Amino acid sequence: MIQAVGASAGVAIGKGFVLPNWEWELPEQRIGVADFAREFERVYEGIRTSKQEIELIRDELKDVVGADESTIFDAHLAILDDPVFMNEIEGIIQRQYKAAEVAVKEAIDHFVTMFDLLDDDYMKERALDIKDVGNRLLKHLLGAPEITLPSDTQPFILIAKELSPSQAAHLNPNHVLGIVTLGGSLTSHSAIMARALGIPLIVGVEGKLEEQLQTGQLIVMDGTDGKLYIDPDEEVIKRYSELQRVQNEQKHALHLIAGHKPETPDGKTLKLGANISSYKELEIALSSGAQGVGLFRTEFLYMDRSRFPKEEEQFEVYRDVAVRLDGAPLTIRTLDIGGDKQLDYFELPEEDNPFLGFRAIRISLERTDLFKTQLRAILRASHYGTVKVMYPLISSVDEVRAANAVMNEAKRELEREGKPFDKNLKIGVMIEVPAAVMIADLLAQEVDFFSIGTNDLVQFTLAVDRMNESIAHLYEPYHPSIIRMLKATVDAAKRHGTTVGVCGELAGDVKALPLWLGLDVDEISMSAHSILPVKERLLRTKQSDSRQLLPQLLECATSADIVAELMRFMANHDSTGKAS
Amino acid sequence: MIQAVGASAGVAIGKGFVLPNWEWELPEQRIGVADFAREFERVYEGIRTSKQEIELIRDELKDVVGADESTIFDAHLAILDDPVFMNEIEGIIQRQYKAAEVAVKEAIDHFVTMFDLLDDDYMKERALDIKDVGNRLLKHLLGAPEITLPSDTQPFILIAKELSPSQAAHLNPNHVLGIVTLGGSLTSHSAIMARALGIPLIVGVEGKLEEQLQTGQLIVMDGTDGKLYIDPDEEVIKRYSELQRVQNEQKHALHLIAGHKPETPDGKTLKLGANISSYKELEIALSSGAQGVGLFRTEFLYMDRSRFPKEEEQFEVYRDVAVRLDGAPLTIRTLDIGGDKQLDYFELPEEDNPFLGFRAIRISLERTDLFKTQLRAILRASHYGTVKVMYPLISSVDEVRAANAVMNEAKRELEREGKPFDKNLKIGVMIEVPAAVMIADLLAQEVDFFSIGTNDLVQFTLAVDRMNESIAHLYEPYHPSIIRMLKATVDAAKRHGTTVGVCGELAGDVKALPLWLGLDVDEISMSAHSILPVKERLLRTKQSDSRQLLPQLLECATSADIVAELMRFMANHDSTGKAS
Repeated sequence: MIQAVGASAGVAIGKGFVLPNWEWELPEQRIGVADFAREFERVYEGIRTSKQEIELIRDELKDVVGADESTIFDAHLAILDDPVFMNEIEGIIQRQYKAAEVAVKEAIDHFVTMFDLLDDDYMKERALDIKDVGNRLLKHLLGAPEITLPSDTQPFILIAKELSPSQAAHLNPNHVLGIVTLGGSLTSHSAIMARALGIPLIVGVEGKLEEQLQTGQLIVMDGTDGKLYIDPDEEVIKRYSELQRVQNEQKHALHLIAGHKPETPDGKTLKLGANISSYKELEIALSSGAQGVGLFRTEFLYMDRSRFPKEEEQFEVYRDVAVRLDGAPLTIRTLDIGGDKQLDYFELPEEDNPFLGFRAIRISLERTDLFKTQLRAILRASHYGTVKVMYPLISSVDEVRAANAVMNEAKRELEREGKPFDKNLKIGVMIEVPAAVMIADLLAQEVDFFSIGTNDLVQFTLAVDRMNESIAHLYEPYHPSIIRMLKATVDAAKRHGTTVGVCGELAGDVKALPLWLGLDVDEISMSAHSILPVKERLLRTKQSDSRQLLPQLLECATSADIVAELMRFMANHDSTGKAS
Repeated sequence: MIQAVGASAGVAIGKGFVLPNWEWELPEQRIGVADFAREFERVYEGIRTSKQEIELIRDELKDVVGADESTIFDAHLAILDDPVFMNEIEGIIQRQYKAAEVAVKEAIDHFVTMFDLLDDDYMKERALDIKDVGNRLLKHLLGAPEITLPSDTQPFILIAKELSPSQAAHLNPNHVLGIVTLGGSLTSHSAIMARALGIPLIVGVEGKLEEQLQTGQLIVMDGTDGKLYIDPDEEVIKRYSELQRVQNEQKHALHLIAGHKPETPDGKTLKLGANISSYKELEIALSSGAQGVGLFRTEFLYMDRSRFPKEEEQFEVYRDVAVRLDGAPLTIRTLDIGGDKQLDYFELPEEDNPFLGFRAIRISLERTDLFKTQLRAILRASHYGTVKVMYPLISSVDEVRAANAVMNEAKRELEREGKPFDKNLKIGVMIEVPAAVMIADLLAQEVDFFSIGTNDLVQFTLAVDRMNESIAHLYEPYHPSIIRMLKATVDAAKRHGTTVGVCGELAGDVKALPLWLGLDVDEISMSAHSILPVKERLLRTKQSDSRQLLPQLLECATSADIVAELMRFMANHDSTGKAS
């Protein structure tokens, strides 16, 4: 047994297949001055083709893994557009009389070495990106075939030195049972991809009997705890087959409750909404029994294009989703870019701490032209369903008032133009900045509903960037301060008759359910794949029990204590008598 | 009158002096292969000399402007140590047969162009740094003299296209009355320097009658509001002379109250401590009437050196400060690096959001060897005065317990070694992370005192990086959420008998005084130059009046309302009857 790092959960059992490296022989001929123009043109052509190919992969991926993950490839497109990269290639052709493919290879090596020299993780990740893009460009210059994985054999467990995002993008969950990589980390692009595709992944096997990993070898792996068995004995295979069977059964059982009403045994209805980014994701959400959309992330409408979407384009998307929801609520969050989300055609300032920077509503209130266009599109869509609008990253009453002023202007315009909209459209704010929690009573007097965004709230409250590996252990969503902030927000909302929901990742964690029931929130909204597991637990958890738990949680001194209380509660309070 | 941007407050009246640019003629000779070694050696020698010179400037500056600002030059040292920079120079010498100075010039131009190409503010600031360092290196290679400002003429107002940090470092407030730059921004290195030196500065005159700015021209400038007059009439000169006189008088009057007891007319004593970084700053603080040190920033002991300071070195500094304070309290904050503070010899991971990253106590709890060394030094110093220790960036009870475990180990070791220390040494935490506010009641049970760090607390609570210009308007220390957090912290402290002070920048703002009196905090600690203005106000502000104000502040919906309430209070409540 090899203990490495589990990077994507699940058990896989199958034969290994070792991925060949992307390596080619380069012709060693010299060119003359007369050949420069031709070689330049070959490079341009290669870049064009590579870009088209990358855009295609990105768009395909979006449907499979969601828009968030697919933006990984935007970094690759940016490299191909970088004048410094192009200058380097042209320089080598002109000064060293080398052919396009050799120039590209040397330019890649130059930049990879430079970034590697800098010896830090961010730069190393960039080096990997450059290598990946460069190999794609080389492939086109050489007319080499894409390296593909066998699809005609039995499904297998893929073994690779490192897996580039390009390679990960071509994985088919029907053929690839699991993945093992020698290098890699939990937060690499490839790991994000594997999790999105639901393929078990173990990384960091380097130096641990890696020579035993060969094509044809029988492998048992558990991506949950990073355990890897090569040529395991019967007992191990039996144990893991059983584990796999149980996991599959659980998946199946969940789908049976998709149509059930989301109600506790003692009659509390907790609306379970979905967080989505596109019309396609809506279908998955509905098939999981979502009762509406608690968070529609509009920024993805703005990505993968060359200019801001027009009112009409936005209107059509919002309307289609509203119509498909057939009266179930659709909560649209206004544009939330900045931080780690950028648009190609809208240059934002480089920031030292983008999470604490020019983002979300802050951009909308500077660029009220863009903001009004979006609000007009949302208002017009409100005529076709139950639409609500929600402002992100609100930290003050001033911001809400400024946003509402633009909203009122948009309404007046539509009235003048005779375009119909829902006169009672509900307006809410995300509670995701600590300041918003502290002034929740003031905000409640300005809006109709709150939606607590736990991801940012936890980051700001604990001063921990959750993408930062060196402090990952400090990102504690069950921190006592968070429980108290949730309580303060819900209390303020209830005092002022404001509806309150939760739409951060915490909402999709089954463990948190007693918390929502204890606090008595109105709605929780989460990724489609979390809805059924949460509902399953909801059907057998009493609100009255959860209410008794809450004061204990509020007294806990540490995250560990809170998690322990929740686990104990789950074990002891099950109205069906089923063990959890 | 030209309206530009005021970047450092104060009035200046005097003749203009236009700063010449750093530009040299370069010899255009070719070298041979046999000369390579010599030219390399010239570059190395130039780099060595430049580094020594930069280190000297930095160290001199530290005494004048404080350690914080002087670290600007660490960026310059890093450039000279960068292998990529050196490789580029060597490459030009070897491949293009050019002499050292030409190679350096071309390398600078190459990197400056590259960074400028990227078209963002951060990279442009880096381009300026490279240009500045490169010019210094060139100066040494050419044996050219330093460009110095006249010191034998009348004091003047300096006019420059842009002012490099190197140039700003040589400014003498006795000769330079004020500065006007065509480019530049509020947050540039030069602006930080001017503020630290107390020299009025106006930036961003570009395109506004800049051709009129000439040596010998009479100039009146007000760095507070960015107003600039060229060849002004008598009336303007008279008005600004009067303004300048009043400002000078106020400065003088303040020094008369340095020895007064810091007590309100109704008998509340509010301890006024100083925030310092070095022994030198202590002297300035004491001459301003500081009653102890509320914040000793130890990170500057760790900077400007090639390895971690040994226990003995730290002990001596802490002891000297404690002895000089003669029984007045000395609150030592343990190492607070990370974020925007780096050490040359201790590589921290590159981070996307360093303010939310691996910093302060987080580093100490990973590197308990370094932490214990520091605690041992502090403990030993506690034998010589009234020393307290304070942990920065605490966000959980777990962290306090872990830190105290190291503290107890250090105590046991010293006991075994027979080294004396204060057995009752008080331990406190900075309250600067929103989480700490929410769990202040839990933290109060673990420590002896709180010190509220408003700078970070405001940043995290509002999710606003205060160094970020594009959202500078959102950095609102008087935000309703902050007032409520202060209240919550003080309430929790008082319930548990924990002493509570404030050591962020807000403590040095005169406007905030009624807040501290209303909340009834025990101590406020600030920059030395704020102590007298705050004390002057304290002597004529009743605590009873401030207490009545507090509930009104807690009900305000916006920062503007709170500031207006404070201003109104200052105007109406003055026990001496003096108008404010």
